[in-house]
Amino acid sequence: MVQNKAFIYKAVPNGWPVPGKDLTVEDIGFDDTAPPPKGGFTTKNFYAAYDPSQRGRMRDPSIPSYSPAMTTGKPVVSVSVIGKVLKSDNPKIQPGAIVMMQSSGTESYSAKEESAVATTQIIEPKEGVPLTAYLGLLGMTGMTAYGSLHEIGQPKKGDVILISAAAGAVGQMVGQIAVREGLHVIGSVGDDRKLDFILNDLHFTSGFNYKKESMAEAVKRLAPGGLDIFYDNVGGELLDVALANMKEFGRIVACGSISTYNNAKDTTPYGIKNYAAMVRKRLRWQGFLVFDPNIAQWRAERDANVTRWIEDGSFKSVDFVTEGMDHAIEGFLGMLRGENLGKSILKIADPE
Amino acid sequence: MVQNKAFIYKAVPNGWPVPGKDLTVEDIGFDDTAPPPKGGFTTKNFYAAYDPSQRGRMRDPSIPSYSPAMTTGKPVVSVSVIGKVLKSDNPKIQPGAIVMMQSSGTESYSAKEESAVATTQIIEPKEGVPLTAYLGLLGMTGMTAYGSLHEIGQPKKGDVILISAAAGAVGQMVGQIAVREGLHVIGSVGDDRKLDFILNDLHFTSGFNYKKESMAEAVKRLAPGGLDIFYDNVGGELLDVALANMKEFGRIVACGSISTYNNAKDTTPYGIKNYAAMVRKRLRWQGFLVFDPNIAQWRAERDANVTRWIEDGSFKSVDFVTEGMDHAIEGFLGMLRGENLGKSILKIADPE
Repeated sequence: MVQNKAFIYKAVPNGWPVPGKDLTVEDIGFDDTAPPPKGGFTTKNFYAAYDPSQRGRMRDPSIPSYSPAMTTGKPVVSVSVIGKVLKSDNPKIQPGAIVMMQSSGTESYSAKEESAVATTQIIEPKEGVPLTAYLGLLGMTGMTAYGSLHEIGQPKKGDVILISAAAGAVGQMVGQIAVREGLHVIGSVGDDRKLDFILNDLHFTSGFNYKKESMAEAVKRLAPGGLDIFYDNVGGELLDVALANMKEFGRIVACGSISTYNNAKDTTPYGIKNYAAMVRKRLRWQGFLVFDPNIAQWRAERDANVTRWIEDGSFKSVDFVTEGMDHAIEGFLGMLRGENLGKSILKIADPE
Repeated sequence: MVQNKAFIYKAVPNGWPVPGKDLTVEDIGFDDTAPPPKGGFTTKNFYAAYDPSQRGRMRDPSIPSYSPAMTTGKPVVSVSVIGKVLKSDNPKIQPGAIVMMQSSGTESYSAKEESAVATTQIIEPKEGVPLTAYLGLLGMTGMTAYGSLHEIGQPKKGDVILISAAAGAVGQMVGQIAVREGLHVIGSVGDDRKLDFILNDLHFTSGFNYKKESMAEAVKRLAPGGLDIFYDNVGGELLDVALANMKEFGRIVACGSISTYNNAKDTTPYGIKNYAAMVRKRLRWQGFLVFDPNIAQWRAERDANVTRWIEDGSFKSVDFVTEGMDHAIEGFLGMLRGENLGKSILKIADPE
């Protein structure tokens, strides 16, 4: 047995997860002398992606949702974990290969059943493309941004797009793609450091810090002619302001509503009042998940374009890396609090 | 000059229109000896359609919307008025013809400018098809129901659909079409007379009176497996309940939000709280107007199917006819209050 530090989902949080009570870091042990599971494989892990959707899976399992509730007492499930294969009982997975595993535990070592093979991707390392890009631009987050912006947002050159949580993992990618495609890109962020980031590093057209200026005034000021697209990661008041400022036939891409995720059970979420605009302006408001066929169909185009953009240096893979399993809880809460710039990633160990 | 009684839009209402103050019936006179307007025509009118959207046009003209604000002091604009041509200065419109005029004044006699000719439809009377059907099933209301249900609702046999204001003009048509197409059709209504009507006359699968039973409980009881389509004429609390009960990939057809139309300026509309379901269940929520190209493209199919259904007696043209201009205000307010079963129509004079 070797030490196997893991980020553990201990109890269903009511509101904000409490470190030590709802979330812990514990040694769950790993038998490095045992064979791999039948038809499966074992890994030493390097990186795990953080994702706001993880909070949605930390719920009472009786509440249905698109993804299953996590199991208390087990490692926190990450959308994507990158590691190196140690042993394999499956011809599709060779020892030594770098793999990205879907919906996998945030732990230092993993033993994967045969059923995991189908959703495990072999990564062929490429010059100029960092491993972490596969958790971000070239991973689920990038697919989320690329697929939904095109499928639901239907961007046309010159369109005005407002992006909430614009410095977040998805927001900054949507913004960078929209800038490349000639849109007028407005970002909403919660601090001046992020405002500086989206304006000067990512070249958004404009942006505002909603903690310093009323959302309604900022949107009127920056988009006096209205919005063609609202890319919504947050929900809440800005969604209401956007509804009031959409142009006719505008599109609302419902990617997330992080403002509601940490509400305690007895909290009433912000009520949207301007929904009569849906009829009056003939808006389309649509939700999606990255695995939906209409989103997933953009994969080949995304892979080709984004790989080229990373290689030629014109697209930034913006990662916020938390170093070491001992800091797993703070990295997770930092993402939920919106403190992290770009894609939040936990580094479990140096890649070998 | 002859008497020309008209339903007059006197002042912008704040909240519910007040008879005598905001709405009146007055004689505006009609010169029956004068020639028609150059290139235009004159009519004696028989029927005018009432429509909830009329309330939306009774607003401060500085508030933009899809249809222009009505002009105070002028007759209330009706979506469709049917009359007989008296005199014409246009070869396309013959004296004696029965015509349906779009966006026309609710008055006993009209003098129409040349610009009205393009939107005036000549009605060829048909055996078994009453004139009022052209204001309902074969008019804008029928087009609204048929086009939006198919374009946005995408009904499939076996789908579960919930319709708000199910005994109203649009609701009862959507319901009848859905019943014909093999859907499981649930109607929400506000009194037991309407419940009886949708169940026994229109053969909805089920329904409930939201004044007698909690909306949340009724929807859970009647659609325990969830909703594929919510056809929304009302907005407000039922919209929130529907969001919580939609199945994955469900569709919300945003036809109207009559619950918000008569709010006074300082009233806060009901706030929708369950919008996080948009993402979680990948819903599509879309507004429309009957003139939008995606809706209007259903016209030929609607005309063919609905005419056949009326002729063979299998589709009811359900009209709520208010008799005589003297009762124009009550007919209008009755519609807004939801007291009328089916399509609300003002009969101005007996057809000749």
